[in-house]
Amino acid sequence: MRRLMLSLSYDGTNYNGFQKQPDGSAVQDRVDEALRELLGENIRTMGASRTDAGVHARHNILVFSTNSRIPGDRWPYAINTKLPEDIVVFRAEEVDEDFHPLRETFHKTYEYRILTGTFPCPFRRNFVWHVNQPLDIEAMRRAVEPLIGVHDFKAFTAENRDYHTTVREIFDVTVQEVGDEVRFRISGDGFLYHMVRIIVGTLKEIGIGKKPEDTFSRALKEKDRLSAGMTAPAQGLTLAEMVHVPGKKKCRTLSDGE
Amino acid sequence: MRRLMLSLSYDGTNYNGFQKQPDGSAVQDRVDEALRELLGENIRTMGASRTDAGVHARHNILVFSTNSRIPGDRWPYAINTKLPEDIVVFRAEEVDEDFHPLRETFHKTYEYRILTGTFPCPFRRNFVWHVNQPLDIEAMRRAVEPLIGVHDFKAFTAENRDYHTTVREIFDVTVQEVGDEVRFRISGDGFLYHMVRIIVGTLKEIGIGKKPEDTFSRALKEKDRLSAGMTAPAQGLTLAEMVHVPGKKKCRTLSDGE
Repeated sequence: MRRLMLSLSYDGTNYNGFQKQPDGSAVQDRVDEALRELLGENIRTMGASRTDAGVHARHNILVFSTNSRIPGDRWPYAINTKLPEDIVVFRAEEVDEDFHPLRETFHKTYEYRILTGTFPCPFRRNFVWHVNQPLDIEAMRRAVEPLIGVHDFKAFTAENRDYHTTVREIFDVTVQEVGDEVRFRISGDGFLYHMVRIIVGTLKEIGIGKKPEDTFSRALKEKDRLSAGMTAPAQGLTLAEMVHVPGKKKCRTLSDGE
Repeated sequence: MRRLMLSLSYDGTNYNGFQKQPDGSAVQDRVDEALRELLGENIRTMGASRTDAGVHARHNILVFSTNSRIPGDRWPYAINTKLPEDIVVFRAEEVDEDFHPLRETFHKTYEYRILTGTFPCPFRRNFVWHVNQPLDIEAMRRAVEPLIGVHDFKAFTAENRDYHTTVREIFDVTVQEVGDEVRFRISGDGFLYHMVRIIVGTLKEIGIGKKPEDTFSRALKEKDRLSAGMTAPAQGLTLAEMVHVPGKKKCRTLSDGE
């Protein structure tokens, strides 16, 4: 048996999230089906990072084992012929036979796009959150700084999931203006359920002056969901990068991750 | 009665073109419905430029007459509440009561996006033509120059439509690299049916070295559809700008225009 790690992009608009669903409506279900059709084996892929319904990925990963001898560089082409147009595999790498994505460390980067301006945009409607109130970008830039570092992000998760720990490390946060968009990027060693969307929702409330600039530092201290702001809508969020950190093992439960 | 000119953007993916259809499947049908619902009047809008099924517009126009006294700057907001998310009205201007879009002159700019690179992109699948062969951008730039000016574009139209004339003036043509895309822009006083898509299809064949660099000048001379290249797919094309040229009247038939 060989074990392979696939890198894929998807438009999450038409899927009920990334992780497989009983009714087969998730991105992972489509990939499993494509692999079964291609290989005639009963493939079950394993993921490392969930995304919610309507959330996108430029880079997410799936791991599976197979008897097939398709050469490594041919895999993406072969699988893409069996996939719908909104899911694209762009890389396949061979990994160790005991490689399990939930036990490996991945550094992740999320991007969130806010569309400013008076009117919504028909072309980007599934990829941005349209905010037509003026945003104070400099205030937003200053506000996110306390997020960097190792913190307990308990205030920034939606549900009382059974987390082993709600401590995460954030490596970098940026707020950038790109044309008529404000793009928020955050990278770290892991994210709690809804964490990025709650951070962005809070950030927007800071941007329009509804919440004070020190909201993030206070919420980190208070560890209370009510200290943070609203949850931003799903469609503006994209899992932008997944970087595997070799040799660094950890023990995670499936409830972990966004 | 007041007469209004609406400016709108749309994602053409889910529509059977811009101009109204007997089965109500066009962009114009949605706008007419929205106006009827909003105003309780039997509105029939008039267009100035068609787009094919799957073609988009950042700026197209529709004109209609109404008894409504909604102030000019409130129109876009009012209509957008009745429109689906893939159609957005962004401007409304009052025009003369005898203003007829087919008798007015509009300068038009089309944009066509080619996605280069090995893999297709799930996010842009409805807005680009994916060409995974290497393109000679410099050759493409040189090749399009003869298109500028007043020419008979008979070789660049699909059907034997009953055109009064197949002569058009092209003001400008550019070929630009933007990230992993090649963007083609063309502006002129009017375009024949499929003209931009045939120009882009030909240009791609020049870019991959399948057709010689002088293909455009030869096709303009020979006035034969067979001298030009293939028709590029609809989804890469966007009607980018419509500029009304006041005071310049002309006589056009509805078969005119893309």
